[in-house]
Amino acid sequence: MNNCLILKGDICHTPVLGEIETLENGYVISVDGICRGVFSELPEEYRGLPVKEFPDALIMPGMSDLHTHASQFAYRGMGMDEELLDWLENWAFPEECKFADPAYTEKAYGLFAESMRKSATTRALIFATIHREATLALMEKLEDTGIVSYVGKVNMNRNSPDSLNEGSTEEAVKNTELWVKEALAKKFDHTFPIITPRFIPTCTDDLLQELGRVAREHHLPVQSHLSENPEEGEWVLELMPDISFYGEGYEKYGLFGKDVPTVMAHCIYSNPEEVELMRKNGVFIAHCPNSNMNIRSGIAPVRKYLQKEMRIGLGTDVAGGMSLSMFRAITDTIQMSKLYWRLIDQEAKALTFAEAFYLATKGGGAFFGKVGSFEPGYAFDAVVISDRRFTTLRKLTLKQRLEQAVNLGLDLNCLIAKYAEGRECLCIPDKA
Amino acid sequence: MNNCLILKGDICHTPVLGEIETLENGYVISVDGICRGVFSELPEEYRGLPVKEFPDALIMPGMSDLHTHASQFAYRGMGMDEELLDWLENWAFPEECKFADPAYTEKAYGLFAESMRKSATTRALIFATIHREATLALMEKLEDTGIVSYVGKVNMNRNSPDSLNEGSTEEAVKNTELWVKEALAKKFDHTFPIITPRFIPTCTDDLLQELGRVAREHHLPVQSHLSENPEEGEWVLELMPDISFYGEGYEKYGLFGKDVPTVMAHCIYSNPEEVELMRKNGVFIAHCPNSNMNIRSGIAPVRKYLQKEMRIGLGTDVAGGMSLSMFRAITDTIQMSKLYWRLIDQEAKALTFAEAFYLATKGGGAFFGKVGSFEPGYAFDAVVISDRRFTTLRKLTLKQRLEQAVNLGLDLNCLIAKYAEGRECLCIPDKA
Repeated sequence: MNNCLILKGDICHTPVLGEIETLENGYVISVDGICRGVFSELPEEYRGLPVKEFPDALIMPGMSDLHTHASQFAYRGMGMDEELLDWLENWAFPEECKFADPAYTEKAYGLFAESMRKSATTRALIFATIHREATLALMEKLEDTGIVSYVGKVNMNRNSPDSLNEGSTEEAVKNTELWVKEALAKKFDHTFPIITPRFIPTCTDDLLQELGRVAREHHLPVQSHLSENPEEGEWVLELMPDISFYGEGYEKYGLFGKDVPTVMAHCIYSNPEEVELMRKNGVFIAHCPNSNMNIRSGIAPVRKYLQKEMRIGLGTDVAGGMSLSMFRAITDTIQMSKLYWRLIDQEAKALTFAEAFYLATKGGGAFFGKVGSFEPGYAFDAVVISDRRFTTLRKLTLKQRLEQAVNLGLDLNCLIAKYAEGRECLCIPDKA
Repeated sequence: MNNCLILKGDICHTPVLGEIETLENGYVISVDGICRGVFSELPEEYRGLPVKEFPDALIMPGMSDLHTHASQFAYRGMGMDEELLDWLENWAFPEECKFADPAYTEKAYGLFAESMRKSATTRALIFATIHREATLALMEKLEDTGIVSYVGKVNMNRNSPDSLNEGSTEEAVKNTELWVKEALAKKFDHTFPIITPRFIPTCTDDLLQELGRVAREHHLPVQSHLSENPEEGEWVLELMPDISFYGEGYEKYGLFGKDVPTVMAHCIYSNPEEVELMRKNGVFIAHCPNSNMNIRSGIAPVRKYLQKEMRIGLGTDVAGGMSLSMFRAITDTIQMSKLYWRLIDQEAKALTFAEAFYLATKGGGAFFGKVGSFEPGYAFDAVVISDRRFTTLRKLTLKQRLEQAVNLGLDLNCLIAKYAEGRECLCIPDKA
């Protein structure tokens, strides 16, 4: 059988929200990049085929990072004393300007892609900068990592520093359409363009309108930021006096999930109308807890969104977030939901580990289709974590090992193999 | 010159709260375990002596961990879905029972001590369990790590599972005094006993009274828990109807800083009288942000404590906290102070990186004397972090490198040397 991949080890996944399924010393099988399921014994038809054995390692679905900024990776973990506007001015914008320089682009995106390759992430939605060529360069590098990604050339033509202002709407749209054309012409196997207005404060109405048109014409998804911060929300309503809530500004121009799949990062201060419209349109929420602490934004009501069965996944939001680690995003999600319960609303039960793990895998994975679970028919995205040196004192259940592996951040140093759509992205000897 | 240690590298410390002092490619000198200061050129008197060179590595003061449970280390990062009482019953207590078994003790405390040795911590206040022999075994292992620690045999004789109940006050006190005697007889160089009532709910009044006496008689410091959780506070007032706030229950029996140095972990719900008494008595607060999230306790008002010039340091509080990383404690402290500002009190400015770094070094270090800074006359506690592979894109300032090293948790995998009181605890080749 061609294109068959069989992994053997201790398997964990969450087919159902809040329920971890595990199998010790089991098999998970991919044929042509599609998962055939989890088996305690190798089915007849696969006998005799090579099996990749990962004894005492955890095999779990790959993580979907629904929101991160490749162009901010170089200064992650720095400048965190500053508030949002100072931080944008002193860190984000000066850094993003550098991607006009191909030599800098080469180095910075090279490091980002290499870190992404070594992470537990198999799917990602990524902001680049306004620069067309740098964005294409980033896409090439991501294609080489093997992961599946959507990459956005950022649009901004107002309230932006001169060197990041695309100028007239005409110019911005021309440049964006050229980028889309070039990106599609590359015929990448697993790297795709996504329409990326930075957020309403930096995009004029006519630019948003045009971006909606481009997205529809090319059937491209959309990503942006929404209701991250109270002051930001007020500013948007000043900039667009005819709307009654932030998301309506995207909706108005076809950028809010009705026409094309859409992901909005943050959604901390969404009012009931905004929440209802997101639900109705199937907008994905990218919950980015680490960034929401660092940038002092607040805590998104994730429990409430889950109760409404909204579409939601997790994002690392580098460099508002400190790290590309999706394991950290899971831990942060749980911790922040506990603080939300304690400090804001004792009706909103804290998220369990199993729920947060689901969000990082199947929850966010849903943006990409059947992704983030080992159920038959799902894309075969898997990561293997060697936790052997952490489990010497007692016999732990797989659930316990999984929780510990995530909470100790073992994705950073104990990832020994990664597959996206059955493609090997990484496979290194287990040094444990 | 004997007992002289000279390190060369990129030096950072915080002699003053909120101000990071740095020197690139500088020297920091220890003679007989005492720091002689930081120098840009090697002073005449030290010329010709061997210099340990750490090119492009960060040299900073060692961290003081003011609160952690050695006996809970084995299950760190697990069971975090459970609320405080279930968590104690299902995780903490069953685990602590195992330290009646010398074979288990040997393994579990061996792993803890090894992790402590490899951490950035050079000083620690540690809870063991009620078991005298296991506590002595832990002290021996900690002595071998080279760090300075105070270790407590835990006292509990009510509201405790049978196997962790010391029984009569007489029995508990006899056992505690025997442990103190044995511990002192070992004449450890840098490992000392500390009186450790678990907290008021598990200690009868007469036990607390006796522990106060033992502490005074042997001039031993005291550690315990205080005002971690609203329900806990109410329970304490039920158990001691004659007191008007939690801390008064310790004060009454000489366990609240007036007679002997005292550290109280958490202090999230301390009322103004309790805060004033802590200030007056010089009680140290061990702020444990990671645990306070995991156990759903809330956020301590650290800014308010700093404004009152209270004594405060950081604690990892394993296994309420997930990790022995004091770098993580610094990051968590800042993030939680930002949420405190956003969600609770916009008068309470978020902590800066420099402030949180001070708390982890000089703030907590003050419990041990002149510790946590490279000023002349301070004990020579230092750690060296190799951040070379994280700084390839641009020339960063030392402050930026330090902030990034902490926020990326480089204490976990990039620590290349550690000294406590001038003693080498660890020195490994720089693999970066």
